[in-house]
Amino acid sequence: MRIEVVAVGTELLLGQIADTNSAWLGEHLAASGIDSHFHQAVGDNHARIVLALRTALARSDGVIVCGGLGPTQDDITREAIAEVMNVPIDRDESLIGAIRTVFSARNREMPESNLRQADVPRGATPIPQVMGTAPGLICTVGNKVVYAVPGVPYEMAEMFERAILPDLLARSGEKATIVSRVVRVWGMSESGLADLLAPRIEALDAMGGNPTIAFLASGIEGIKVRITAKASDREQADALLETEQRQVLALIGDSVFSADDRSMEEAVADALVAAGLTLGIAESLTGGLVASRLVEVEGASNWFKGSIVSYASEVKRSLLGVPDGPVVSDAAVLAMASNARTVLGSDIGMALSGVAGPTEQDGKPPGTVFVGLALPGEDAQAVELHLPGDRQRVRQYATISALDLLRRRLTARSTTTTWS
Amino acid sequence: MRIEVVAVGTELLLGQIADTNSAWLGEHLAASGIDSHFHQAVGDNHARIVLALRTALARSDGVIVCGGLGPTQDDITREAIAEVMNVPIDRDESLIGAIRTVFSARNREMPESNLRQADVPRGATPIPQVMGTAPGLICTVGNKVVYAVPGVPYEMAEMFERAILPDLLARSGEKATIVSRVVRVWGMSESGLADLLAPRIEALDAMGGNPTIAFLASGIEGIKVRITAKASDREQADALLETEQRQVLALIGDSVFSADDRSMEEAVADALVAAGLTLGIAESLTGGLVASRLVEVEGASNWFKGSIVSYASEVKRSLLGVPDGPVVSDAAVLAMASNARTVLGSDIGMALSGVAGPTEQDGKPPGTVFVGLALPGEDAQAVELHLPGDRQRVRQYATISALDLLRRRLTARSTTTTWS
Repeated sequence: MRIEVVAVGTELLLGQIADTNSAWLGEHLAASGIDSHFHQAVGDNHARIVLALRTALARSDGVIVCGGLGPTQDDITREAIAEVMNVPIDRDESLIGAIRTVFSARNREMPESNLRQADVPRGATPIPQVMGTAPGLICTVGNKVVYAVPGVPYEMAEMFERAILPDLLARSGEKATIVSRVVRVWGMSESGLADLLAPRIEALDAMGGNPTIAFLASGIEGIKVRITAKASDREQADALLETEQRQVLALIGDSVFSADDRSMEEAVADALVAAGLTLGIAESLTGGLVASRLVEVEGASNWFKGSIVSYASEVKRSLLGVPDGPVVSDAAVLAMASNARTVLGSDIGMALSGVAGPTEQDGKPPGTVFVGLALPGEDAQAVELHLPGDRQRVRQYATISALDLLRRRLTARSTTTTWS
Repeated sequence: MRIEVVAVGTELLLGQIADTNSAWLGEHLAASGIDSHFHQAVGDNHARIVLALRTALARSDGVIVCGGLGPTQDDITREAIAEVMNVPIDRDESLIGAIRTVFSARNREMPESNLRQADVPRGATPIPQVMGTAPGLICTVGNKVVYAVPGVPYEMAEMFERAILPDLLARSGEKATIVSRVVRVWGMSESGLADLLAPRIEALDAMGGNPTIAFLASGIEGIKVRITAKASDREQADALLETEQRQVLALIGDSVFSADDRSMEEAVADALVAAGLTLGIAESLTGGLVASRLVEVEGASNWFKGSIVSYASEVKRSLLGVPDGPVVSDAAVLAMASNARTVLGSDIGMALSGVAGPTEQDGKPPGTVFVGLALPGEDAQAVELHLPGDRQRVRQYATISALDLLRRRLTARSTTTTWS
């Protein structure tokens, strides 16, 4: 069964609000094994809503239309559906009573305009509201179906789960469960990963395409590899996923920073907690970005001491003992990493210094970044990176690259193999 | 001229990522006077992309298709456009050279799969890339047009502004010049601002709707008020804008932090440069976020010294002399702000300490934030804020609120009136 989502509202087309409803519905339809091949957004215009609904019904088995069920003149989804059904509209007395009750419960008089929310295309089944005032609709059109839900996200979600999904599953006869897992990767290009996974993807296709592997380049967040399995119950779907995930992890190796859709900073946090070590940072070009990502992890205060954002060179020298000479250098980040440990009282010191751009510094081109790492019982080490992009991207890449270097060093120190 | 946006990517239909591109394009098309009556999202499937493009071309004058231009097997937008144009695909040698150059600049070999990005439907004009590897396309289909852009948001935006918008305006024969300015506001609710501007918006409507005023709540970035004027030439449009902007600025007052769509950190930078003062920060709950926003401003090294991210309480005491007692307090941020000046050698010290959540700290509920400001020749001052939201939003609100407090203090010190 294929369901198309149609979001109604001129504000969506103008980019004034983001259409989170379509994404939510897409996710929840997929999780129930219902395909959604197209989404549309359309403004508050009768002819265009009618056209969007007819387009959707022509290429899908049903439509969920979100929004345009309010009490204002702009809310014309009911009328558009009636035209598509080719039926008149009736005002439903029992719905008027329900809407009046919502207002009286709030000690308010029902405005005249709310009467429109009791309008029902003849032959449609209203979905009672339990949160707001706009009832939903289930409308049969030939052998297809149009569901109308309010645009308010929590009203939409509640109505979808209570009334639409059961109706949809009954119509589709679908019994399968669909589950997916996301593996996250840093340090490979999308095309490199594609080449690596291509034989496995082809093999799965040849075996009937279950599970499937898809990947999504997520810029400075690396690449997400999603494995999706379909089976008659959750347990079987999980078993399929488990087997496939093991193969994918083995293929990609240590460029995987999370096997379960966690962020790089969470991966670093896990590695620090496992090692029982605390972290202090000295950062220059990233200006606090590394620290600000780390504190997003709940419980960061257990392993994160702080960061010296030594943006000015004199701060590097006075607080972190950086020797005379260029501050974008091995020598600078080695001093910064070692002294960050002392100044912040941490087990590990990590340091970043580099050229964000747009102009060169100390004869080094934009994108040149040094990362220093001082781990207990080891000599401090420095790594030189050359990163692409403008000022902001160099910073973002420097941040995630440094975190990944730390993660790899901690993983290499540990005797347990992470992905076995 | 009516342009439909078609976003390509199965991950959009599955709700794995939100489609921010369509909203961005809708906003920027509208700002240039180009209507967008429908948006569509479609998965990575040849027949369905073709159908989505044909549907869009049937009901609009042109299409901007986003995504599906990458190097992987999933990226099939080029092939779908070729089918809609009914032409074969040629591999463009000069594009191969450009892609190879991107890889060699990163000291990497170009994977074989990237050759696909040099494929061009015959008769289409490539839009050269300046940031990544995927070229865009301008494809004439009968008397209509299909523009293809990469799905990576900043690559899409850059290509839209550099190549697509000029081409669109040339095709539309739009002779009028449409110019807009964005005034940015912090410290007012959307409904408060709506009430304030309603009489002015009604007056403009009554006078023919030129210029127009629209606003867009942008969460932690405040509210954007866009004034758009249309005239036969740039000079007249600018004159209309200038007059209207003056009225809007006078109505809103000092909640305006930028009259020309600059960010809060740029507004702070302007105020610091005008005052000839340098800034040093001590931050706790924001974990480097304040510093990382400030260094995004070009030339930050002229006025920004650095930040002590004192996440652990012992770092607050050892480096910043915070006295015994609760670290979420007036006393703590006053010490942090004053000592940040000394430690970092700056004219101004700003400090933040607070409870990001999810649990309370020192008996203070999540959202409690203290901001300290130490300006030269003045007693240090502390302000207590109560901010809404989860951990991440409390941090973001704390950051922009602190920057806004500094901006207002610097503006109040200055004798020149900023918006006259």
